[in-house]
Amino acid sequence: MESLAIITSGGDAPGMNAAIRAIVLSCHAKGIKCIGFYHGYNGLIEDECLTLTPEMVRPILQYGGTILKSARCPQMHTDDGVKNVAKTLKRHKVDSLVVIGGDGSFRGMMALQSYWSGRLIGVPATIDNDLACTDSTIGFSTAVSTATHAIDKIRDTANAFERVFIVEVMGRHSGHIAFNVGLATAAESILSFENCPSSSLEQVKLSLIEQIQTQQKNNHTSFVIVLAENLWPGGAQGLKQTLNDTANIESAVCVLGYIQRGGSPCPEDRILATELGIEAVEAAYSESGVMIGKEQGKLIRRCIIAATEQKKPVDQAIHSVYQTLT
Amino acid sequence: MESLAIITSGGDAPGMNAAIRAIVLSCHAKGIKCIGFYHGYNGLIEDECLTLTPEMVRPILQYGGTILKSARCPQMHTDDGVKNVAKTLKRHKVDSLVVIGGDGSFRGMMALQSYWSGRLIGVPATIDNDLACTDSTIGFSTAVSTATHAIDKIRDTANAFERVFIVEVMGRHSGHIAFNVGLATAAESILSFENCPSSSLEQVKLSLIEQIQTQQKNNHTSFVIVLAENLWPGGAQGLKQTLNDTANIESAVCVLGYIQRGGSPCPEDRILATELGIEAVEAAYSESGVMIGKEQGKLIRRCIIAATEQKKPVDQAIHSVYQTLT
Amino acid sequence: MESLAIITSGGDAPGMNAAIRAIVLSCHAKGIKCIGFYHGYNGLIEDECLTLTPEMVRPILQYGGTILKSARCPQMHTDDGVKNVAKTLKRHKVDSLVVIGGDGSFRGMMALQSYWSGRLIGVPATIDNDLACTDSTIGFSTAVSTATHAIDKIRDTANAFERVFIVEVMGRHSGHIAFNVGLATAAESILSFENCPSSSLEQVKLSLIEQIQTQQKNNHTSFVIVLAENLWPGGAQGLKQTLNDTANIESAVCVLGYIQRGGSPCPEDRILATELGIEAVEAAYSESGVMIGKEQGKLIRRCIIAATEQKKPVDQAIHSVYQTLT
Amino acid sequence: MESLAIITSGGDAPGMNAAIRAIVLSCHAKGIKCIGFYHGYNGLIEDECLTLTPEMVRPILQYGGTILKSARCPQMHTDDGVKNVAKTLKRHKVDSLVVIGGDGSFRGMMALQSYWSGRLIGVPATIDNDLACTDSTIGFSTAVSTATHAIDKIRDTANAFERVFIVEVMGRHSGHIAFNVGLATAAESILSFENCPSSSLEQVKLSLIEQIQTQQKNNHTSFVIVLAENLWPGGAQGLKQTLNDTANIESAVCVLGYIQRGGSPCPEDRILATELGIEAVEAAYSESGVMIGKEQGKLIRRCIIAATEQKKPVDQAIHSVYQTLT
Repeated sequence: MESLAIITSGGDAPGMNAAIRAIVLSCHAKGIKCIGFYHGYNGLIEDECLTLTPEMVRPILQYGGTILKSARCPQMHTDDGVKNVAKTLKRHKVDSLVVIGGDGSFRGMMALQSYWSGRLIGVPATIDNDLACTDSTIGFSTAVSTATHAIDKIRDTANAFERVFIVEVMGRHSGHIAFNVGLATAAESILSFENCPSSSLEQVKLSLIEQIQTQQKNNHTSFVIVLAENLWPGGAQGLKQTLNDTANIESAVCVLGYIQRGGSPCPEDRILATELGIEAVEAAYSESGVMIGKEQGKLIRRCIIAATEQKKPVDQAIHSVYQTLT
Repeated sequence: MESLAIITSGGDAPGMNAAIRAIVLSCHAKGIKCIGFYHGYNGLIEDECLTLTPEMVRPILQYGGTILKSARCPQMHTDDGVKNVAKTLKRHKVDSLVVIGGDGSFRGMMALQSYWSGRLIGVPATIDNDLACTDSTIGFSTAVSTATHAIDKIRDTANAFERVFIVEVMGRHSGHIAFNVGLATAAESILSFENCPSSSLEQVKLSLIEQIQTQQKNNHTSFVIVLAENLWPGGAQGLKQTLNDTANIESAVCVLGYIQRGGSPCPEDRILATELGIEAVEAAYSESGVMIGKEQGKLIRRCIIAATEQKKPVDQAIHSVYQTLT
Repeated sequence: MESLAIITSGGDAPGMNAAIRAIVLSCHAKGIKCIGFYHGYNGLIEDECLTLTPEMVRPILQYGGTILKSARCPQMHTDDGVKNVAKTLKRHKVDSLVVIGGDGSFRGMMALQSYWSGRLIGVPATIDNDLACTDSTIGFSTAVSTATHAIDKIRDTANAFERVFIVEVMGRHSGHIAFNVGLATAAESILSFENCPSSSLEQVKLSLIEQIQTQQKNNHTSFVIVLAENLWPGGAQGLKQTLNDTANIESAVCVLGYIQRGGSPCPEDRILATELGIEAVEAAYSESGVMIGKEQGKLIRRCIIAATEQKKPVDQAIHSVYQTLT
Repeated sequence: MESLAIITSGGDAPGMNAAIRAIVLSCHAKGIKCIGFYHGYNGLIEDECLTLTPEMVRPILQYGGTILKSARCPQMHTDDGVKNVAKTLKRHKVDSLVVIGGDGSFRGMMALQSYWSGRLIGVPATIDNDLACTDSTIGFSTAVSTATHAIDKIRDTANAFERVFIVEVMGRHSGHIAFNVGLATAAESILSFENCPSSSLEQVKLSLIEQIQTQQKNNHTSFVIVLAENLWPGGAQGLKQTLNDTANIESAVCVLGYIQRGGSPCPEDRILATELGIEAVEAAYSESGVMIGKEQGKLIRRCIIAATEQKKPVDQAIHSVYQTLT
């Protein structure tokens, strides 16, 4: 292998820079040229790149965001877009392409396999942690930490006012963030896809109202609901309205939003990104169409199709802990 | 003085606990009994209280929220409500009442003066920093710090995606938080009451659009707008819509919300709260109807009317710094 | 089971309060009386205790330290001490005792087995992470996080001055903290028991000096050495002296010390402590002499002897990552 | 003015980068060329520099350290060194030199006045806050914040073990950090130059011991001593030894050290650095030998001699607060 390219693609996640650093240093140690393309697949289409050196990546381990920028790339849904990516890779004589991103980015890899014969390696980075074949994705731990500390602050006000708060957290269509943050902040209620199937929202509403009213009868205290985004019709505001309309329960809303994507990665994400990055270069010698993951403490390589086809469920143990304590 | 009562009233602010601690320790040193009433004026109406001891307040300096709880109290807008507060104070033989809160809480003090002859002392605590007669209110510095660190995280994503972000910060009807946070985060634009009078929003819109388009032409980069709450019609979402409809500019929205109210107070707020708390007890021997403030490094006592009648403007210097750099 | 007692023992670790909370809430749900004894085994000797209620533990999840206090207890090395503990447990009709602590605390449990027939359950809590039979101990993740953020700050100065820094981290006689923190901060060198056996210190010294000199020749830059406590003769100051005496290399020293023990637990420790606490109550119905652990995502119960007899080695993968990148 | 040069000199302080950014952007707006020299005065002696552009400084506001590096420069104590600095400045046709640093750096400015006729402007940046003619120096607020949060963590352990802790903080020969951190952390004792003249250490020791013993008699609780560096013979370890030898009081030691110098600047330091930086460029048109300061909310220009000749005392109010509460 003489030349390896990297992109960061899709939603950014804390630790992407740490993965870039590990890949660049690893390539350097092995005498492989390392090219970074900007803006995800867009940079491959428009041939926007630079050669990455150890000096460039030395200081970036601790920074959020990505020095290679990221972007969605609608052109990857067209044959022409994919062909242009392949052309750029050939022009630069790239042997292997490492894609740091989530499942959308990995689907781009699969499309590219038809037009490019180089080796394709995926490194899972998304705060949502919804990819199979890895216990944790890069950025998840930091997002949980950021949301947890935010809710710690909200709890101060909730306690001072003995008030109901609805806090909406990210996670797209999975509840990894919601459940972990909910447990870490002693949320009185966690509402997520896993325990609130859309068919049961009416039921969920009633039991939530009962839970709030029971608690308010027993003692003055705060009540924090951690709500997964995309779950409730109308989001956090919709739920607030529902509580008010149905049971005259007042509540305050906080949508944590983009703060969950940024910030200096926590040690877990720095180390995970470093391990996955090194292993990606290792794998790029001999494999293609694989995602690097870490399961039960061991680095693994899994077919990219397996990693994207199924969503990783929220740990059953987390569910039962939540049920025990509420 | 034999007996002093405390309430925390209105929106909670980080450092309220530090003020309570200072007052209690100061009373203890002087042999004054210190009574805390819960839930702001409500606790005075319903006679919900406890005697505060040094042991209770020793560990609370560093905690957000308020151990005395807080609340709005609509009954204080009625004569009956105010009379009931006076009754409770007389029943407990309270000599002085210290109210820790913002301008709404201080207006309650003024109403109370007609029905109660004890001494009334105000301690300014609100994250909005909109009270006159003090350079800074308790909680302001922490709120600025929390919002600043949140936008630092958002900047990571903004940079990675070279995107426009609209971040709405608190401040009710004044721009202290907006301007300080804007400068501290190198916001490309700060939109607040002071530089965007409601009559000029059309003009503001056009020059904002021009600024964004100029920057986007010159270089790929992020653009962060810090927006004061209650300023733009429809808030941050309204501004997003406006930018999109008028100039086809896409943007992302983040409403920081309640995280700005909570959290462990920063050292500035801990020290300010401690100084104001001690001085409040000192003042309670001889004065009434005054707010304790700190201006230009000196503790002062000002008539509560002066403190609430006028709003403290945002420092002119801050304006001009912002203009120099953008 | 009608009555369960808890102590926190040995060095405190962030997350101990979260474990207490989980145990108390879990007992409450099952109708078991829960008694907390203060100051570790000392409180059992001197019968210093209180009945723990859900109200007491609701707010403590996020706080460092332990509401039950902790202490070393030399009397547990004597038969009389152990007998007195047994007496107190009998007097209170305790069915099960849960000990939250490290290996010293667990050895106390083993001694107690001879004099008390109740059930004994261990919950592993120590920042050192040196216990076998669990991937992580309560407090370890927070300690790594605190040390990492501290070194991030030190790196600023190290970079500004292009200087060599020796940063000593905790860990008693194992390198879990040193290796994880070293990787998370991109330390140029990690010196710990695992890669620096005492017989090889002379060799380590020479290769460290060579590494520093090579780097200083090639470019101006900082050099951070993460040093495990108890490793180098004279500690960090000893190593500084050695570098100066042997090779005229100047360096600055920072001993992170006790800040690593405290602080609000990170989400990982809050969740781990909650899971282990719940499982401890579950186990206390039927087992004794076991430690609750979590390995590869699963809660396990292991004989306390196995957990204390062997030390958990630092993950081999971590070693090899470090070697790849330096 | 066509050309302005900047150095950062002496101990680094959080906010130096914010000052550099403000100066560069301000120069850019005025059409002035801005040259940065590396490593303080050393870069001026060895002509190590680069032209600073807005693009370079846009992202640095929030970062600790200094992109221009810093260093002590012993050669500035010799005529030859100073002459070489003057030569470099002439060679680059520099009209004004802005020195960001502390009193040592400002003394270098004074020496330079004899050999160079350009304009010299000082911007006060040191965590010690010991410069006169400004209420606060750049970096002080961040250092207080870092030390405060560190002691918050130590307090957890101190409480858990009901133990005496001696925490040594920076400040060189003044107690600004010690007093502010001590108040912000509710330290039971603050030992600094201002309240412990070297002639009275014996007396201080006795009253400290009495204070500890009284508290230990009255209740189980922690006792935190904040100790200024360079005060006690043998530092924190010396004081620990003294307490042990004289009164058999056990204590634990923590020297916070270099973590106080680094880290992302807090909002106060970011804003102060920005204001001072802008004003420095303004002043550089017409003045020389002045330091820019901010007193009582107003930007001022003071003769550099006045700023360095006297040390700014710790606010008397802070003293008296401390006395009231302990």
